[in-house]
Amino acid sequence: MSSFEEIIELAKRRGFFWQSFSLYGGLNGFYDYAPLGSLLKDNIISVWKRFYMDAGAIFIDTPVVTPEFVLKASGHLDKFADIASECPKCHAKYKLENLVESLGIKNPPSTPEGYIDLLKENNVKCAVCGTRLIDAYQFNLMFRVTNNSEAFGLYLRPETAQGIMINFKLLNNFYRGKFPMAVAQVGKSFRNEISPRQGLIRMREFNQGEVEVFFDPDHEEWDEIPEGDKFTLVPNSGDEISSSVRDAHRSGLIKNAGLAYFMNLTAMILIRCGVDGKRLRFRQHRKNELAHYSSDCWDAEVLIDSDWIEAVGISDRGDYDLTRHQEFSGENMSVTVDGRTFIPRVVEPAAGFDRILTAVLFHSYYTRDNGNRVLGLACDVAPYSACVLPLMKKDGISEKAKDLLVKLAAHNHSVVYDESGSIGRRYARQDEIGTPYCITVDYQTLEDDTVTVRERDSTKQIRMRIDDILMHDNSFRNDNLKKFIQSSKS
Amino acid sequence: MSSFEEIIELAKRRGFFWQSFSLYGGLNGFYDYAPLGSLLKDNIISVWKRFYMDAGAIFIDTPVVTPEFVLKASGHLDKFADIASECPKCHAKYKLENLVESLGIKNPPSTPEGYIDLLKENNVKCAVCGTRLIDAYQFNLMFRVTNNSEAFGLYLRPETAQGIMINFKLLNNFYRGKFPMAVAQVGKSFRNEISPRQGLIRMREFNQGEVEVFFDPDHEEWDEIPEGDKFTLVPNSGDEISSSVRDAHRSGLIKNAGLAYFMNLTAMILIRCGVDGKRLRFRQHRKNELAHYSSDCWDAEVLIDSDWIEAVGISDRGDYDLTRHQEFSGENMSVTVDGRTFIPRVVEPAAGFDRILTAVLFHSYYTRDNGNRVLGLACDVAPYSACVLPLMKKDGISEKAKDLLVKLAAHNHSVVYDESGSIGRRYARQDEIGTPYCITVDYQTLEDDTVTVRERDSTKQIRMRIDDILMHDNSFRNDNLKKFIQSSKS
Repeated sequence: MSSFEEIIELAKRRGFFWQSFSLYGGLNGFYDYAPLGSLLKDNIISVWKRFYMDAGAIFIDTPVVTPEFVLKASGHLDKFADIASECPKCHAKYKLENLVESLGIKNPPSTPEGYIDLLKENNVKCAVCGTRLIDAYQFNLMFRVTNNSEAFGLYLRPETAQGIMINFKLLNNFYRGKFPMAVAQVGKSFRNEISPRQGLIRMREFNQGEVEVFFDPDHEEWDEIPEGDKFTLVPNSGDEISSSVRDAHRSGLIKNAGLAYFMNLTAMILIRCGVDGKRLRFRQHRKNELAHYSSDCWDAEVLIDSDWIEAVGISDRGDYDLTRHQEFSGENMSVTVDGRTFIPRVVEPAAGFDRILTAVLFHSYYTRDNGNRVLGLACDVAPYSACVLPLMKKDGISEKAKDLLVKLAAHNHSVVYDESGSIGRRYARQDEIGTPYCITVDYQTLEDDTVTVRERDSTKQIRMRIDDILMHDNSFRNDNLKKFIQSSKS
Repeated sequence: MSSFEEIIELAKRRGFFWQSFSLYGGLNGFYDYAPLGSLLKDNIISVWKRFYMDAGAIFIDTPVVTPEFVLKASGHLDKFADIASECPKCHAKYKLENLVESLGIKNPPSTPEGYIDLLKENNVKCAVCGTRLIDAYQFNLMFRVTNNSEAFGLYLRPETAQGIMINFKLLNNFYRGKFPMAVAQVGKSFRNEISPRQGLIRMREFNQGEVEVFFDPDHEEWDEIPEGDKFTLVPNSGDEISSSVRDAHRSGLIKNAGLAYFMNLTAMILIRCGVDGKRLRFRQHRKNELAHYSSDCWDAEVLIDSDWIEAVGISDRGDYDLTRHQEFSGENMSVTVDGRTFIPRVVEPAAGFDRILTAVLFHSYYTRDNGNRVLGLACDVAPYSACVLPLMKKDGISEKAKDLLVKLAAHNHSVVYDESGSIGRRYARQDEIGTPYCITVDYQTLEDDTVTVRERDSTKQIRMRIDDILMHDNSFRNDNLKKFIQSSKS
C-alpha cells in the first residue's frame, strides 16, 4: 500500500472518517467524520478560533441557504464556474484546469473557447475510454435549492464570506465603528465539484473558516510581523525562494502588508495544529488563476502524497464585495471616520479545515522500527489527550482507574479508558490514534496514588502523583509535559 | 412594547441575532447569529455536549446534503409533511394544525380529507383577506437540492439522526460491539416551514443536537435516575401533575425507562443552561401527533411569551429506522451478542438549540428598579465571562487593564474590554448582555495588584487580588464566585 492508501485505511478502520452513505454504496464527494475525526476536527477548529479570538476577531453564524440576489451581487452566479469537458462517448466529466495541468501544459486558458482550441491542438483524450475530448463549457459550482414558496432562487453558499459581507454595516455598528475589524465564520460550504477526489481533499460539502478583515485603506495598521520560520515561497513572478514571511514582505516580494500579516498568522496556526513546516509553502496565484473577487492571493499549500494542496487562501478582496452589494442593494456601504468617507478594503484568510486535517494526519504518520503505526499528533489536537489503563481488572485496580478517569473528565480532559489486552497492545492501539499519553494504574497506585505516564513519541515512562496530574489542568494540551518526559531518565 | 418585542429589539441592537439577508429586505425563516449570540449558542452547545460526553456518548459529523434513497428508507420522503391550505384569493399559506389549534379546535384530523371537512364545517377563513379556505394538501417539508451529475435526487436533511442510523454498523464496530451505545451529532437541519415565526422559534434552517441511543431490548440497562426537581408533566391520558421525573417513572406515568432517563438528563441540561424550572414542562405526544418513526414521545417544552414551545423531543424510535434501512439497503442490521441476535432499539433525545437559546434569553431577562435591563445569564453560557474596565484611561491604568485582559485570555476566559463612558454606564452595558462579572482596574491596582469585582445580579462588589482571579481558571464559569460575592459584605 502507498502511504496514502495506508492512511485512508487507518482513518476508516480506527474511526477518523469514511465515505458517506456507504450503506447504500456511497456518494462521491461526501465524507463523514467518524468519532475520532470529529474530535480531531473540533480541536483543529478550536486552535484556529483561539488564534483569531486573541487577535480580536468577532464571530458570526449565518445560513448556508442563500438567496440568488446575494450571489448575483457577489458575482458567484455569473462567475463561480469551472470549465469542464464531457467525454462524448462514456460521459466522464473533466475539470479542464486539472486535466491539462496533469498533462504538463503550462498557462491554461481562461475561456471555454481557449480550451476547445487547446484540446484540439494537443489531441487530448478521455482517460477512461480514450475518445477525443472536443467540447468545453462553463459549469457553475453552486448547488441550487428548490423551494415552493419564494419567487427567487436559493443556493447552498459556495463560501461563508458573503454572510459577513452583507452584514458589514450591522457588524461595524456592533464594533462601535472601529477599524480594522476582523469578522470570522466557521461553517459548511458547498461546491458541486466536477470530479471530487478520494478522501477529504476535494469534497462537495466541506468545512470552512473564513475571516473578513475590514480596514481603512488610508490607515493600514497591522501589528508588526514577528520573526518567523523560513518557508518556501513561490511568487507568480517565477523563482521560488526560502524566506520568512516577514523578510519576504520587507524585501517587497509580498507587496501587500495585510496579506503578509495573515500569511504569517496562518503559518503559526498550521504549525500549532501539527502541519510540518517543511511540507508547507506559500504560492502566489497567477493572474489568470485569481478568483473573480481577488486582486492578489497567496495560498498556504501543504504537501499531501506528493501533491501540493491549498489549505488556506489569503486573498486581497479589496472593496469588490462591499461595492457590489452597495450597487445591488442600493444601501450605502461607506463609513465616515474623522471627516473622511470611504468603503473599507478587505483581506481574507480562508481556511479549509478538511484539508488541514488531512495534512495533519499525513504529516504526523510514521511507523516504528517494529512496524507499529503511530500518529504523532500535536497535543493540542489529538482526539484524546490521554488514555487511562488499569494494569489488571482485579483487586480494585480498574475501579481506581475509572475513578481517575472521572476526575480527569471533570477537569475538562478528553480522556479514554481501555482495559482489554496486554499493556503493550493497548499502547500500540493508542499510538495509532495519536493519544499523547497513556496513564497506567497499578498495585502501587493503590498504595501511594502514583501512576506511570508514558509519552507516545519517545515511549519513555515516568512515575507521577495523581494530584500533580490533576493540578495542571492543561498539562495534556501543551508540550510541557512532553518535553519534561522526553528529557527525563527512563 | 411587550417583553417579546423588547427582547427581539435587544437581541438585534446588542448583537445576539437578527434576520438574515436584511440588506436585501430579509428572508422569512432565516436568522443570523450576531457576535454575542454566536458565543451564547456555542456555550449552550458546549454544556449539552459536556453532559453527553460525561454520559459516554460518541460524536460524529455527517453531511447535510442527503440522497433520496436514505430518505425513502427513513420514511421522510413519503411522510415528512404538514397539511397545508392556501387562500384561493391572496395565496397566504397556512399550516392547518396550527391554524385550527389557534381556533380552539381540539383533536385535529390527520389527513387532508379530514381537514377539508373541518374547514367547511367550521367556516374557516383566511386571516389576511377573509376569503374562505377550501382545499387542504400534503406539503413535504424537505428542501430539494439540484445537481446535474447524479441520477437520483438530493435533499437537505430534515434531521441529523439519519446520518447516525445508516452508520450504525460501522459505529458499533468502533464501539467494540458494546450496548447501550449513544451516538450524538450537532449540526444544521432544514425544514421548509409553511409559516415561519418571528425570531428563532420556527426557522427553515436551524441548529439541532440529536443523540441516538442504541440498546439491547432484552437488557435495558439505564443508570438509576437521581432524585430531581419537580416539573409539570402533561401525559396524553389527560390531567397534568407536578412530579419529579424519577417518581413519574416509578409510578408508571412515564412507562418507558429509557425515555425517563433522558427526560431527567434533559431537565438537568436545560436548567444548567439557564432555563427556568417553573417555565419548563414535559408533555407527552397524543397518538395522532407522533412522528411516523415514533411510538412514544415526551417533549420538554419551555414557556416563551405565553406559548409552550418544544425545546427538546425525547422519542422512542424503537427499531423502526434500522429495520427500514435493513429492508431498503439489503444489509443485515442485527447484531449477535452472547448467542442472541437482535436489532437494537433506539431512544432519541433531540434538542433544538435555537429554541433553548430563546428560552434562556426570555427566562433570564429582567429590569431593575431604575428601569435598566439585565440578562441574568448563567455563568456557563454568558457570551463574556467578565468585562475588564479601567477606571481612567490615564496614568497607566488602561495599560494595566489591558495587561490583565491578555492574562485572562491566556487562561481561556472569554473576556471583553470596555473603557468608554462612566463606570455606571459600563456596568449597565454589561448587565444588558449578561456578563456576570465586571473587573475594575484603578489606582490601587497599580499599588497592590488588587481589583474590584462586581457581581451582576446582586450588584455587590468585593476587592480581590489579581493572582487569586488567575489561579482559579474556571472561577468565572461556575457559580462559586457568584455565591461568594453574594454572601459577602458589600
